Amino acid sequence: MNFASDNTAPVSPEILRAITDANSSHVASYGADPLTALLKERASEIFETDLALYPVATGTAANALALATLVKPYNAVICADEAHIATDECGAPEFFMGGAKLLTLPSADGRLTPMQIEAAVARAIDGGIHHVQPEAVSITQATEWGTVYDADAVAALGAVCRRRGLALHMDGARFANALVHLGCTPAELTWKAGVDVLSFGATKNGALAAEAVIFFNPAFAAGFERRRKRAGHLWSKMRYISAQLGAYLQDGLWLANARAANRAASRLADGLRIPGVRVIQPVQANELFVAMPEEKIEALEAGGAHFYRWIDVAGEPLPVIRLVTSFVTTDAEVDDFLALAAAP
Amino acid sequence: MNFASDNTAPVSPEILRAITDANSSHVASYGADPLTALLKERASEIFETDLALYPVATGTAANALALATLVKPYNAVICADEAHIATDECGAPEFFMGGAKLLTLPSADGRLTPMQIEAAVARAIDGGIHHVQPEAVSITQATEWGTVYDADAVAALGAVCRRRGLALHMDGARFANALVHLGCTPAELTWKAGVDVLSFGATKNGALAAEAVIFFNPAFAAGFERRRKRAGHLWSKMRYISAQLGAYLQDGLWLANARAANRAASRLADGLRIPGVRVIQPVQANELFVAMPEEKIEALEAGGAHFYRWIDVAGEPLPVIRLVTSFVTTDAEVDDFLALAAAP
Amino acid sequence: MNFASDNTAPVSPEILRAITDANSSHVASYGADPLTALLKERASEIFETDLALYPVATGTAANALALATLVKPYNAVICADEAHIATDECGAPEFFMGGAKLLTLPSADGRLTPMQIEAAVARAIDGGIHHVQPEAVSITQATEWGTVYDADAVAALGAVCRRRGLALHMDGARFANALVHLGCTPAELTWKAGVDVLSFGATKNGALAAEAVIFFNPAFAAGFERRRKRAGHLWSKMRYISAQLGAYLQDGLWLANARAANRAASRLADGLRIPGVRVIQPVQANELFVAMPEEKIEALEAGGAHFYRWIDVAGEPLPVIRLVTSFVTTDAEVDDFLALAAAP
Amino acid sequence: MNFASDNTAPVSPEILRAITDANSSHVASYGADPLTALLKERASEIFETDLALYPVATGTAANALALATLVKPYNAVICADEAHIATDECGAPEFFMGGAKLLTLPSADGRLTPMQIEAAVARAIDGGIHHVQPEAVSITQATEWGTVYDADAVAALGAVCRRRGLALHMDGARFANALVHLGCTPAELTWKAGVDVLSFGATKNGALAAEAVIFFNPAFAAGFERRRKRAGHLWSKMRYISAQLGAYLQDGLWLANARAANRAASRLADGLRIPGVRVIQPVQANELFVAMPEEKIEALEAGGAHFYRWIDVAGEPLPVIRLVTSFVTTDAEVDDFLALAAAP
Repeated sequence: MNFASDNTAPVSPEILRAITDANSSHVASYGADPLTALLKERASEIFETDLALYPVATGTAANALALATLVKPYNAVICADEAHIATDECGAPEFFMGGAKLLTLPSADGRLTPMQIEAAVARAIDGGIHHVQPEAVSITQATEWGTVYDADAVAALGAVCRRRGLALHMDGARFANALVHLGCTPAELTWKAGVDVLSFGATKNGALAAEAVIFFNPAFAAGFERRRKRAGHLWSKMRYISAQLGAYLQDGLWLANARAANRAASRLADGLRIPGVRVIQPVQANELFVAMPEEKIEALEAGGAHFYRWIDVAGEPLPVIRLVTSFVTTDAEVDDFLALAAAP
Repeated sequence: MNFASDNTAPVSPEILRAITDANSSHVASYGADPLTALLKERASEIFETDLALYPVATGTAANALALATLVKPYNAVICADEAHIATDECGAPEFFMGGAKLLTLPSADGRLTPMQIEAAVARAIDGGIHHVQPEAVSITQATEWGTVYDADAVAALGAVCRRRGLALHMDGARFANALVHLGCTPAELTWKAGVDVLSFGATKNGALAAEAVIFFNPAFAAGFERRRKRAGHLWSKMRYISAQLGAYLQDGLWLANARAANRAASRLADGLRIPGVRVIQPVQANELFVAMPEEKIEALEAGGAHFYRWIDVAGEPLPVIRLVTSFVTTDAEVDDFLALAAAP
Repeated sequence: MNFASDNTAPVSPEILRAITDANSSHVASYGADPLTALLKERASEIFETDLALYPVATGTAANALALATLVKPYNAVICADEAHIATDECGAPEFFMGGAKLLTLPSADGRLTPMQIEAAVARAIDGGIHHVQPEAVSITQATEWGTVYDADAVAALGAVCRRRGLALHMDGARFANALVHLGCTPAELTWKAGVDVLSFGATKNGALAAEAVIFFNPAFAAGFERRRKRAGHLWSKMRYISAQLGAYLQDGLWLANARAANRAASRLADGLRIPGVRVIQPVQANELFVAMPEEKIEALEAGGAHFYRWIDVAGEPLPVIRLVTSFVTTDAEVDDFLALAAAP
Repeated sequence: MNFASDNTAPVSPEILRAITDANSSHVASYGADPLTALLKERASEIFETDLALYPVATGTAANALALATLVKPYNAVICADEAHIATDECGAPEFFMGGAKLLTLPSADGRLTPMQIEAAVARAIDGGIHHVQPEAVSITQATEWGTVYDADAVAALGAVCRRRGLALHMDGARFANALVHLGCTPAELTWKAGVDVLSFGATKNGALAAEAVIFFNPAFAAGFERRRKRAGHLWSKMRYISAQLGAYLQDGLWLANARAANRAASRLADGLRIPGVRVIQPVQANELFVAMPEEKIEALEAGGAHFYRWIDVAGEPLPVIRLVTSFVTTDAEVDDFLALAAAP
């Protein structure tokens, strides 16, 4: 019963096999290999557009490199106050951007609204030369609270970004989970809704260490390759990241894995409709936030369940735990957890 | 006949197998896993000392993170003018160090001397507050010219570093190749000779993407983990780097691979003692630099040999090519190359 | 009737005279001059302790250099959300600190409390390697809302900083105004209360361009001089900043100027006790924040008064203006303003 | 007999007077004042072109801000190995540029040649993604060896910069000295010869603390104002820098001061044509480099002359001293020095 994080999960067998299959003799290094070329084609088909795609090994690298490419050192990025880039990357965005700031806005469910963006821009303009000016907005899909922006919500943010001259970045560490929840196309959820750059995650959903930074407007990618190199994120044996991403996108593996994770989360949510326990956010991807009495939490821990506690949840009197499912979460694990939770 | 670079080589089967074996269900993330713990023990035995060891995926990350940990943003690192950190990392050290400078010194064969260090320190002191002050020295083992510092040469540099209060970093992207050439112990070539931090390379010698930053003086490692995280180099699924390094160090795989590469280089050097061709540096690891007439270079290329040309080699009237061997270079490849080279 | 800012004010005649008096022939550059030495002695007497003092030309430079000296690039500074360093220095602290973050806490009156610091530290520790860790606290004296920390309030913050291993920085752009309001000694309000570093402002209170960074614990100053140099803030003709600061501290000029400014602010506050108008913060230094109907604001502007509007003041239904007084504000200006405000 | 540096000199009386005259009551801050506006007009007339001009207090700030505006963090600046930006600014350019590198080229007399630029560009291109690419060239006028680029020499560099897509920056800390030596117009020596940005120095030539960054192509100035602010170089009381620069440019004060300094240097050079003494560089501005026996140097010091020794001058067997003259150097000082030097 491991619900600590989707990054404790193993690698999908299909992806491991792709790595092994890539292990032929002498291949051109630094991304000039056939697997990397093929990956770009496949992504282009899936997103139904030309794009610039750069594989990297971690989500933090993907986000920080993307933002550094979009934002000048004296400007800022607007994001939610609970955004992964703001709270869980140990300052990586600021480091890569050369000191540019994150302007964080409060969000009860992880989502930003167009009105918040407008207000933040107005405040920055009012501050004149003394206040950093936003140059991009970053949203997380699915959000850190396990909620999802639908295509219309993204498009509304995309519209305000266009109007205000801001780039729109999507941290898609759990993009697949959001996509299968919504049932729309990858294009509808990204560039058609105004997303300029996507951090396309795979590691949490079955890869070994593989993410891709995807620029839907290739003009925005200027300098990206040099930034990746000088950040130590250009692999000499790039083929082994591209092989992972290629397998991830092949035959719908990425969607199947995400569906399995989401389904486990839904089953948990359904089973937790019990007295004294509250799921405090809509469950739209593979994360649940659950308020319950301390004794119940301890009973779950004693029963062998692994998860994290969430401290300082505003307005919530009970302690809160986070449960994360993944493509390897089994029905038995869910059932065992629910049985423990239901015990009086 | 691929002599372009050791990073075009594949992954050793033993290392691929270790990755596959690591693929069990739910493992603690971010390095809190058993394989990472085991790796530290194994490295400690091999280097015969306590040490702090941090796996990362690329050599540029290893070097830049190590130097950033050693050197404050307003100071400098002394290195050779052909050092990889100075010419081939697109400014990664400067980025990670927050703008600290590399003070490059000329070197005919890639090696620095204690007298050069002393002179550079004297010049910096003479410059007072206006001139950056060196805080570390970085040497490459084996060097970018395929030469090797023996333990006495390292110790002589170590002594001047101690005297001048400088940390000593070794870029060991090809550490194994230097070690098997010299026949000394890992300890003799590093901490016993005054090396404080080693970028311990594996990727060029059979790994997929795996290097380790090793601090022999753990006090020097303060802050390293946060720097690694904020640079996007902390893998969530760390076990898959540690598995590579574990296999690399097991049963002498690293030494066997390096011996194979060095042996191929020696065979090339021996075979190239032919009229009109000159190996212009001592061949002590797995790289050769060879001066020859343009027509011969073109004939080699026409015959299917892959390698890079080296431009602007000081004092060398003939064009120069670089040949790099690896653990997969076969005798047949060497023989074929030598046959082409010997053709009139 | 100029209440826009204290930095629109001119230079005190005594300070201008000191600049002129400093204009003798050939003087040692970069701070090795007698006036700079004398300044350090004078400051040491006034603060009743040994100290390290570094003159710079702007308050932003003073703050950003001080913080960069205290905080490593992968750590953070805790400050109020309205702190000048957070909102009005265009990211200077982040730039100088190499990307370290500001963790901003809400504050209704500009002041932080020990409990807030404790909670922020707890949150950061809970975030582990993924979350930046605070290494310093920065408070503003007087605050951006015109309020003042008394010596006990500073000491309470100093105590939590000691307990948590945090350095305590005071942005004293209006330190003199706070001091004369409280009537305590400079020592009581700084190092005796646990302040490690003070940005000691003079520009807003009669200097041309002069601030001093004062380290009460000289060990904390390591590297400051190099940081100042590489930020372009080491004046070759340093004597002309030191002359300003010397005159500022001589014969109590700094206190007299601050008293004049504070007195004008008090008179404004007293006079604004009129129907429909509310001074929304305690007036403890030389700034007032005043809520009033839009028509009255327009009438004041039409009458020739200069000031800024403050947008988005939480919980305040009326528009708010900021009034700043200085050592040159006259009784007539105040009276004229009050007459306009009192008009029906 | 102070020949240590032109920055030990005092402030021209005309400039001090301008500061005093600027001291009227309440003036708009941060550069929105009439003196700053007037300064831009005056500079525009003198340079015979529209331009963007930004006052700052130090030469290091001017250079570092100018280069940061021109060059992205992953690129590089080509300069001479003795350039002030490379050796005497404690890494300020690298700090402001976010880690971009200086590619230093050897120069016997401080001047770069077009062929050197071409070769450096070719080397960088050959290095591909791994090697930083130059984005600007920086030259010093007059150079650190007291020599001068004439308009044709600048134009030749300007042409190669255009061809290679590089911006051309001129560090004009002693621009006035070069100009009066050459007798050409400011326009001919700058934008007409392809200079994009000029660090226009005044501090070494009679100002208190005043330089201007001048963009001849205003499009290149994008972001400069924010960079200046976040570096702490935007003065609130900007009028007091602008007043200095205004007076400096009025009635030819800047040229008169430079002529006086150059004349004193010429007189020194003429007088030093004595046995055993060699002026080792052409004297074209206000600096001399003089080789002489150790005993003579000590005799000069004993006689009360102040100057610096220059260590490690390549190919020079004798010790070398540097003599710098300024607008306050008197004939008597020169004569006294020459008398000491001529003593047997």
